[in-house]
Amino acid sequence: MEDKTAGINSVNGSGYETIPEGTITSVPGVLTAACHCGIRKYKDDFSLIFIPGSTVCSGVFTKNKFAAAPVIVTRQQLARNRNINAIVINSGNANACTGGQGIDNAKKTLALAAGALDLNEENVIVSSTGRIGKQLPLDKIEKGIMICSKNLSPDNGHSTARAILTIDRHPKEFAVRFDFQGNEIFIGGIAKGSVMVEPNMATTLSFMATNIRMPADMLDEVLFECVDSTFNCISTDGCQSTNDMAVLVANGSSGVTIEEKNSDIYRYFKNGLFICLEELSRKVVEDGEGATKVIEINISGASGKNEARSIGKKVANSILFKSAMYGEDINWGRIAAAIGSVEDAIDSKRIDIYLDDILVMEKGVAADYDEERANRHLKEKHIRFLVDLNSGDACSRILTNDITYEYIKINAFYRKQK
Amino acid sequence: MEDKTAGINSVNGSGYETIPEGTITSVPGVLTAACHCGIRKYKDDFSLIFIPGSTVCSGVFTKNKFAAAPVIVTRQQLARNRNINAIVINSGNANACTGGQGIDNAKKTLALAAGALDLNEENVIVSSTGRIGKQLPLDKIEKGIMICSKNLSPDNGHSTARAILTIDRHPKEFAVRFDFQGNEIFIGGIAKGSVMVEPNMATTLSFMATNIRMPADMLDEVLFECVDSTFNCISTDGCQSTNDMAVLVANGSSGVTIEEKNSDIYRYFKNGLFICLEELSRKVVEDGEGATKVIEINISGASGKNEARSIGKKVANSILFKSAMYGEDINWGRIAAAIGSVEDAIDSKRIDIYLDDILVMEKGVAADYDEERANRHLKEKHIRFLVDLNSGDACSRILTNDITYEYIKINAFYRKQK
Repeated sequence: MEDKTAGINSVNGSGYETIPEGTITSVPGVLTAACHCGIRKYKDDFSLIFIPGSTVCSGVFTKNKFAAAPVIVTRQQLARNRNINAIVINSGNANACTGGQGIDNAKKTLALAAGALDLNEENVIVSSTGRIGKQLPLDKIEKGIMICSKNLSPDNGHSTARAILTIDRHPKEFAVRFDFQGNEIFIGGIAKGSVMVEPNMATTLSFMATNIRMPADMLDEVLFECVDSTFNCISTDGCQSTNDMAVLVANGSSGVTIEEKNSDIYRYFKNGLFICLEELSRKVVEDGEGATKVIEINISGASGKNEARSIGKKVANSILFKSAMYGEDINWGRIAAAIGSVEDAIDSKRIDIYLDDILVMEKGVAADYDEERANRHLKEKHIRFLVDLNSGDACSRILTNDITYEYIKINAFYRKQK
Repeated sequence: MEDKTAGINSVNGSGYETIPEGTITSVPGVLTAACHCGIRKYKDDFSLIFIPGSTVCSGVFTKNKFAAAPVIVTRQQLARNRNINAIVINSGNANACTGGQGIDNAKKTLALAAGALDLNEENVIVSSTGRIGKQLPLDKIEKGIMICSKNLSPDNGHSTARAILTIDRHPKEFAVRFDFQGNEIFIGGIAKGSVMVEPNMATTLSFMATNIRMPADMLDEVLFECVDSTFNCISTDGCQSTNDMAVLVANGSSGVTIEEKNSDIYRYFKNGLFICLEELSRKVVEDGEGATKVIEINISGASGKNEARSIGKKVANSILFKSAMYGEDINWGRIAAAIGSVEDAIDSKRIDIYLDDILVMEKGVAADYDEERANRHLKEKHIRFLVDLNSGDACSRILTNDITYEYIKINAFYRKQK
């Protein structure tokens, strides 16, 4: 089978080097701290990311109509000023559906952090994750700021990656470097998310840094494009969060500035950012609550990108398909039924479905395939499907996972376990 | 709290009488038979519904682009002729994704049934349900036709209701009667479905009959409207089927003919049909795979009916919300997040959420409510939510169920159990 997913970049052989145990503090000039301030029991629940000096920051946010107070406040901050030096993050409380008081609390958090770090409020942004509908305990936030502001270090990347998690099992960290005309360029980040993951022009929580410099509008464009083909192409459960944000801060400490779009360095950087976001988003899917499989759904031959993506999402979010994957049962009829449920005017008689390189449905009709070989593939942890619409040139790739007893257990009894 | 769901009809006090153990054969002139022809093991898998004489038949079908062969063929039959005397139904094989051979097999089924019942092919329609992607075993279909055509009786309603099931736990049957100017009018039906239930201008499988007579275009309109507010307003798992159809046959044996739209008898009949479809669709939700709860999501104060319905569906299909219901955990933040994920331009600051009559979120903000009372409600089998958008007059009601370990088990290991 022709590789219909060609064009997706990989780290290998592309001049980019993965940093061993890379994280956000792999980027020179980035300091962090994490602590337990008491919003939740036991685990660290508070962190600061500190990037001093002149920076350019860009963010992409949830489209949810119940966007949380920190999303609203951080959007406002970035609308006024793009030089961001500190990101305040708490877990255990989403500060969502908290009304005017929630907004006030997010703003007070900015003021407290600015005071402790000797910054102006306009240089600080906030992010929260956790339970919806409770007011933020400002006394605990203040305690967290006091502790973390005294412990900022380039060695705290891993503990910060842990402190932003909610019920994720594993931290998500990644960093990559490449050389440009004798300068070392770094891009690194951390992310959280294992449930309520179906980003819509946004992400789960994700914080990234780079030591390159570029104009704000160019940074916006690059971040938006990279998020759109990575975090916006994953789904663990089809549920959209109120608190999603992806933030990238560029501090220019490498001495390299990107001035022109589509210049060599622009393309190198964009590709590097793509690799970083791709890895972080893949880690979110791998850590999907209760998941035992990572499933890649490639759509090709679509009439348009939106069509390709909506078909991929329909399959990725079909709970019947996800159950079948858990049961290691091909049941491709469930894929066909999910594809057929899109609004787009697709022609079922042209559609092929492959499991890896095994053609299981040809032109809308059951194909004659080697069931034993198919079953062997289904036992793997990583499963790959291709849906070829044979109608155009557009393609898309969606990453998802299976659904298991564990997902139901975690989400049914989540509150009672705490 | 004001009852925002007023206007939804109920059987009680409306002059309609529920027939004890009512089913499709409660309608005079309807004969059925069911048998085991061997498509699947053990359970009956084949049935015939026979309604002799002059009839008018109307159908509503799935919008899935992979519509199964019986859906395509039955649509064609009804486009040519509306006098339908026989419905041939098999379970265990969906005859979907079976290409030209699947269409041929559906047509051959018509011919075999017409031969055995001494009908013209144009007076027969077909319906299938079961696994996708296998050709229909015509020899077994022929055997089923032979057996059933010799056993047609008004006493076989219950066994027919069982034979059309796949992995449903319970049959779904209902019949209602009312008097009109000394004539007894009956409406009765059977349905199947417990998985892959999110009808889109269609239903799961549902077959209904009535002894009234009316013009075909009027019957179409009434059926469409009633399906739209009943079967199209339920969801067990958000997955759309390739084989859905709702068919209503009117044989006129009561002697009553509806000639005018909005006449008294038109309204009586429409209301009766609504009651019948409402009961059948509720039984589908109650029998949702692995479900322990039936959840009614009422949306009011929306700007338009589509907005109301899409919000209700977002909540009904949120697997996080459904998990919370299983865990008897209110977690209304998941309802807010689901509402906020719609494309419509809704104003989160106007939205109230009630659990029964307990206000849990007011104008987009957490309300102060009696948790103990809320928890008592969540322990009930039937749970009712109201989302008031406070922005318009449109409303909608969506019925759904919770999601449990059992759903995953059934759908992950479905094939292996058989």
